[in-house]
Amino acid sequence: MRHALALAARGRGAVEPNPMVGAVVLDAAGAVVGEGWHQRFGGPHAEVHALAAAGERARGGTLVVTLEPCCHQGKTPPCTDAVLAAGVARVVAAMADPFPRVAGGGLARLRDAGVVVEVGVSEAEARRLNAAYLKLLATGRPWVHLKWAMSLDGKTATRAGDSQWISGPESRQRVHELRGVVDAIVVGRGTVEADDPALTARPPGPRAPTRVVLTAAGRLPDRCRLRDTARAVPVLVFTAAGNEGRIAGWAEEGAEVVALPAGEGGLSVDAVLAELGRRRMTHVLVEGGAAVHGAFLDAGAADELHVFVAPLLIGGAAAPGATGGRGVEKLVAALRLGEMTAAPSGADVYLHATRTAGGVSS
Amino acid sequence: MRHALALAARGRGAVEPNPMVGAVVLDAAGAVVGEGWHQRFGGPHAEVHALAAAGERARGGTLVVTLEPCCHQGKTPPCTDAVLAAGVARVVAAMADPFPRVAGGGLARLRDAGVVVEVGVSEAEARRLNAAYLKLLATGRPWVHLKWAMSLDGKTATRAGDSQWISGPESRQRVHELRGVVDAIVVGRGTVEADDPALTARPPGPRAPTRVVLTAAGRLPDRCRLRDTARAVPVLVFTAAGNEGRIAGWAEEGAEVVALPAGEGGLSVDAVLAELGRRRMTHVLVEGGAAVHGAFLDAGAADELHVFVAPLLIGGAAAPGATGGRGVEKLVAALRLGEMTAAPSGADVYLHATRTAGGVSS
Ligand SMILES: NC(=O)c1ccc[n+]([C@@H]2O[C@H](COP(=O)([O-])OP(=O)(O)OC[C@H]3O[C@@H](n4cnc5c(N)ncnc54)[C@H](OP(=O)(O)O)[C@@H]3O)[C@@H](O)[C@H]2O)c1
Ligand SMILES: NC(=O)c1ccc[n+]([C@@H]2O[C@H](COP(=O)([O-])OP(=O)(O)OC[C@H]3O[C@@H](n4cnc5c(N)ncnc54)[C@H](OP(=O)(O)O)[C@@H]3O)[C@@H](O)[C@H]2O)c1
Repeated sequence: MRHALALAARGRGAVEPNPMVGAVVLDAAGAVVGEGWHQRFGGPHAEVHALAAAGERARGGTLVVTLEPCCHQGKTPPCTDAVLAAGVARVVAAMADPFPRVAGGGLARLRDAGVVVEVGVSEAEARRLNAAYLKLLATGRPWVHLKWAMSLDGKTATRAGDSQWISGPESRQRVHELRGVVDAIVVGRGTVEADDPALTARPPGPRAPTRVVLTAAGRLPDRCRLRDTARAVPVLVFTAAGNEGRIAGWAEEGAEVVALPAGEGGLSVDAVLAELGRRRMTHVLVEGGAAVHGAFLDAGAADELHVFVAPLLIGGAAAPGATGGRGVEKLVAALRLGEMTAAPSGADVYLHATRTAGGVSS
Repeated sequence: MRHALALAARGRGAVEPNPMVGAVVLDAAGAVVGEGWHQRFGGPHAEVHALAAAGERARGGTLVVTLEPCCHQGKTPPCTDAVLAAGVARVVAAMADPFPRVAGGGLARLRDAGVVVEVGVSEAEARRLNAAYLKLLATGRPWVHLKWAMSLDGKTATRAGDSQWISGPESRQRVHELRGVVDAIVVGRGTVEADDPALTARPPGPRAPTRVVLTAAGRLPDRCRLRDTARAVPVLVFTAAGNEGRIAGWAEEGAEVVALPAGEGGLSVDAVLAELGRRRMTHVLVEGGAAVHGAFLDAGAADELHVFVAPLLIGGAAAPGATGGRGVEKLVAALRLGEMTAAPSGADVYLHATRTAGGVSS
């Protein structure tokens, strides 16, 4: 199963909104005779690859798979048919698939046909691997990554707004890799104005993220990189209802402008996520600035953190930190994260943590 | 020399304001026959320990020592006398001792007596080991450690001032260890009011630091742990000239109150450091809060950083960060640190960096 999970992870960024799935086929004697993984959205599932590799050697053998095989006609035929046709005697699955058209039906079909079925092997790891897929299914909201680069004293810009570059080239490279596997990158109007970012993955990854700008007031610069490249790489602007007209120029140049509910603090973060989830976006990377990071945190929308700490001190009571917003009053109310890892990233340190040890955050 | 440097480090916290020194004696055949280190202020120097251990076997051998042997009568007799009496043929020293009454005189005396002298072996490491000693000698100012605990979003308290505890027990233990090897711990009036800290090392280390409070305005609480324990563990209050009277109660209960020059931003940081340096304090640990950390940073007084990052998110535009003060306007003006290391500290990450790769910061 460990190997099947590693195979599954190779699909990251290419299979979403499908889950990542890996499969290994053992023959009747227990030797590995086939392996496979779900390689791209719309392509064959992991089981099909693995069983095809095994051929006749699968007969009487075991299929080890990180997720329940599907039993419905989707973009590809039901995997249960392929499993039964291959004649395997046993299926070991890490977890059932909560996808409504499967939801235990795949395992039941196999059991009914006389296959020995075991489920729950390495389930925690499998849930962790597909936490974003599971969250989207359970809540209709994508998995939210928050990312920032800060100095050792926790500043994300100087008091004058200078923030390019706090982190070094290795860290920026990691951010580009992250961009290449997410569905959307979100920034606030302040960041567009201050930094004029391109928000593309360079070099490109398996996925070209949609660039999302939040501006309740509908105030955006007339000329900037996002607007100038909106026909080449999708740009989505969320604004408060009634303010679409102020950014008509963006729509003319190819950006999609969508009105969402807004309150005092700006656009409703939950409405933003619901709209992205409706588009079946699985991973959203929020790149800032502080106001937007704070709003996501206040809304409880912080599933995974990517923080680059650079070996420098900026100082200044007026220099912005990573999160604005309202924040908590008491420390006991702070959002506690699961295991935090630290890895060198050039001269910087890359701190990474997820909200829960595994599974779905709400 | 590597071994001699490791021996020297055993004196940390016990020898200051003397330098840490380690020594190894090899006999004429090159075998190690003695080792020693400077163990406590006022006690015998490293060479004396090592030569005593070697006895007659030192004759015709080599003394490897991390700092030039002294040639003056201080608390103990000149080490050069002991070296010559032992009859070693060769002395290998990592560096000359800039202490005015030595300053090359020890090595010259040995050379004059016919001893072969080599200097500069592992000099960079030796300078790093005694960076604080070297800074105090060169500038009259102690080595400044800045320490704080912050959340992953760089906050050192919630918007309501709640900061106990951001970091976990392992990190707080490390802070107590650090306290036990420094000469003074510095905090601002705000921290005394918000946290009522004891600022002692628990369990005690080799050194019992003086607790230093900064209050230009001379406003301090009437009852608090520092004041209540001022007779047991020294408390030093710096205030602006003319405001001593406001804290007469502290003086009555055993605190020392000293007037220093102050400007708009509060007490002069350089005056604070000059006064501590005058008292031959080698290491000063500045524990906060943000205003004081910012003032030290603005004054360029940040030699070594100890930052504990906890796996939690506090949020809030009004929550304090690690450094207040004025800060820099442009990133190129930020204070760049040498190699930054990250080590797990319970669930936290301990980030540690020094200002320069080695040697004296000014
Ligand atoms: N170091 C880093 O990693 C990093 C990353 C990004 C940015 N930065 C720096 O951060 C600074 C910009 O940050 P910022 O805080 O000023 O601006 P920001 O967070 O980028 O944008 C804030 C704006 O977003 C809009 N918005 C819409 N809905 C919102 C909501 N629910 N909550 C908050 N904002 C909402 C509002 O625009 P309207 O007024 O138009 O409604 C608001 O003014 C720049 O200096 C940039 O260089 C640093
Ligand atoms: N997480 C952590 O590691 C940590 C550590 C320590 C504190 N904290 C938190 O930090 C907060 C307190 O920080 P703070 O920034 O309010 O206060 P602070 O830095 O502790 O104290 C500031 C006060 O120090 C005095 N001062 C004298 N000379 C100064 C100078 N040159 N520059 C600045 N101040 C000078 C002034 O008092 P006068 O007005 O009397 O002149 C000033 O108001 C508390 O919430 C505490 O819990 C957190």
